[in-house]
Amino acid sequence: MKDFTFYNPTRIEFGKEKEDNIGQYVSEFSVGSVLILYGSDRIKTDGLFDRVTASLKKQGITFESVGGVISNPLVGLVREAVDVVKKNNLQGILAVGGGSVLDSAKAVAAGAKHDGDVWDFFVGKAEVKEALPVFSVMTLAATGSEMNPYGVVTNSETQQKYPIGSPLLFPKVSVINPDLMATVTPEYLAYSAVDIYSHCLDLYFTASFLPVYTAALIENILETVMRTTGVLMNDPKDYHARGEFAWAATMALNGNTFAGVEGNSYDTHMIEHAMGALYNVPHGAGLAVVLPAWMEEIKDQKPERFERFARKIFNSADGDEGISKLTQWFTSIGAPVTFAQAGLPEDAVDPIAENAFDNAKLWGMDTMYPKERIARILTLAVK
Amino acid sequence: MKDFTFYNPTRIEFGKEKEDNIGQYVSEFSVGSVLILYGSDRIKTDGLFDRVTASLKKQGITFESVGGVISNPLVGLVREAVDVVKKNNLQGILAVGGGSVLDSAKAVAAGAKHDGDVWDFFVGKAEVKEALPVFSVMTLAATGSEMNPYGVVTNSETQQKYPIGSPLLFPKVSVINPDLMATVTPEYLAYSAVDIYSHCLDLYFTASFLPVYTAALIENILETVMRTTGVLMNDPKDYHARGEFAWAATMALNGNTFAGVEGNSYDTHMIEHAMGALYNVPHGAGLAVVLPAWMEEIKDQKPERFERFARKIFNSADGDEGISKLTQWFTSIGAPVTFAQAGLPEDAVDPIAENAFDNAKLWGMDTMYPKERIARILTLAVK
Repeated sequence: MKDFTFYNPTRIEFGKEKEDNIGQYVSEFSVGSVLILYGSDRIKTDGLFDRVTASLKKQGITFESVGGVISNPLVGLVREAVDVVKKNNLQGILAVGGGSVLDSAKAVAAGAKHDGDVWDFFVGKAEVKEALPVFSVMTLAATGSEMNPYGVVTNSETQQKYPIGSPLLFPKVSVINPDLMATVTPEYLAYSAVDIYSHCLDLYFTASFLPVYTAALIENILETVMRTTGVLMNDPKDYHARGEFAWAATMALNGNTFAGVEGNSYDTHMIEHAMGALYNVPHGAGLAVVLPAWMEEIKDQKPERFERFARKIFNSADGDEGISKLTQWFTSIGAPVTFAQAGLPEDAVDPIAENAFDNAKLWGMDTMYPKERIARILTLAVK
Repeated sequence: MKDFTFYNPTRIEFGKEKEDNIGQYVSEFSVGSVLILYGSDRIKTDGLFDRVTASLKKQGITFESVGGVISNPLVGLVREAVDVVKKNNLQGILAVGGGSVLDSAKAVAAGAKHDGDVWDFFVGKAEVKEALPVFSVMTLAATGSEMNPYGVVTNSETQQKYPIGSPLLFPKVSVINPDLMATVTPEYLAYSAVDIYSHCLDLYFTASFLPVYTAALIENILETVMRTTGVLMNDPKDYHARGEFAWAATMALNGNTFAGVEGNSYDTHMIEHAMGALYNVPHGAGLAVVLPAWMEEIKDQKPERFERFARKIFNSADGDEGISKLTQWFTSIGAPVTFAQAGLPEDAVDPIAENAFDNAKLWGMDTMYPKERIARILTLAVK
């Protein structure tokens, strides 16, 4: 075990109808007014918005709301939301949606306490020193944002999809009610499964030191994702499968998988963020394209890790077969594994590689990933 | 997944020489003076006390100290420590030791903010409404106390070994440095392994609903404990094995294994606490005696769970063999599995059963565990 700090103060309220208590949770933190941030208007037609606001009103909590957050959420909307918060002097941010909404909410929470442009935090021009408290009611499980201090937002003008992170951005309370996720489309279920998978595999295959306990923890998350995705593809309303899927998503990026690990990096995310920034590919779809190709590129660096993966996850003695079986599984759940399937033109290799190389520089990974190597991985994925 | 709340704000500082930063960690919480609570004088001869106090002094933190905490820690010493804290108006408690020391520290932290006797909290006469912040530097891994809000203390006058619990008693920061655990005797390593095992198996075998993810999480903890105990019996200084063992202990009782679980109870602990209260048997030794006998008693209630345990942990298709293999493993590491091996007289069955039945009543388990059933389990363990 290598040295580590584990700290995660987010409270998870998991279960049926827990969103009806959101007013109470918010009031426990002496927050008297919030900005409700959300995505599509679906939450207005399916009754969720009304139930959440009824719960807030019951506690005397006032609110404003801003909708329209999209997949690969844009800093433009974050800026608008920051203005609403500042103008109304709101005391907290309540995200109602999936990872994109919550990621945006974190940016708003930091931006509301910052005099300059919120994008400053993403490009290293400012540090988060203060933030409004963030709460969430999740309607999609994938990013793990509900129990971590990170967010990713896209700047469409500069074509940058960049992360923000600060211990101040841990949500205070996140509600995970599997019933709210029962209407996720099969397409987005597949993307979510791939996102969780990549959070795990980025670490699993890059770590220079991986405790056996942590390897097995990751394998348990992967097994859970595969098993429950299979169940949910047949029966989207299976509550326990939906619940285990959601909890696996949370566990994949809440710090548990980092414990005692050394030398890990988020390679497929570094590349995928470029796809999202340039072509607005859904995050999970982009990852499905990158992941098998990336595994091909790096497999000879840690053959024993690839053998373990093949053995534990696919009951195969052959490391290469682990990659092909994973690719087959992605295809079987409807995740794209080629440029064409993801709707990316072949000539996108160069611009994505260039954009990803900017990420690599920002993340301190440019020695490991020169532009040519990123292009080679992407070319493998063109097929 | 059944409804649950997950909340654990303890910060873990894991790694080499992290105890040298304890002054910094304490000062981050604006605590200017602490009571150092510890067990034997070993920490004074091996330099740990000096290093911890040097770190405190560096931050201008003043301290008093109280030593002498024993296994099955006594409320008498807790009361003395509370007096020292009150008299000197100390602002925090720093436990340097194992689970008994930290459990006592939690009681002191609550007692220092209470006008009456600290034992009031244990017998339901008072509720913890305020507590001093608790910090720890762990020298033994077993109880999980470093990352949970519980403590167990013994009242030798009333012959009660009772728990205290409150979200206010989560340690603020716990230091886990595997090097500080390298001198644990093989005997106490075995007891610790059994303690972790029983935290897991109490839940695993009693839960009326156990998510597959959680079952596999527990099996991972059990596998880690068995594997690393084997390594450490041969090489007590193996840093990574010591580290994985310690982290498994933390994970076994920090809330992760409760997530989504329904209907679990701490049956072997309920019985063992009576042994500890009456005969001062080390906690892990008592548990080693109780656990296999208890498994025999309940095995027909959940045969599929026992079969899974046998299959996953001992690669056997036979549920009964899971119990016998576990008993053999306890014996192989030097943990007692009979009354005689634990130094308990045969006629201890009745008094232990009686005392345990008082626990059962207090824990709301008396319908499930009438005195006769507890006596039957204990009789199985006499051998």
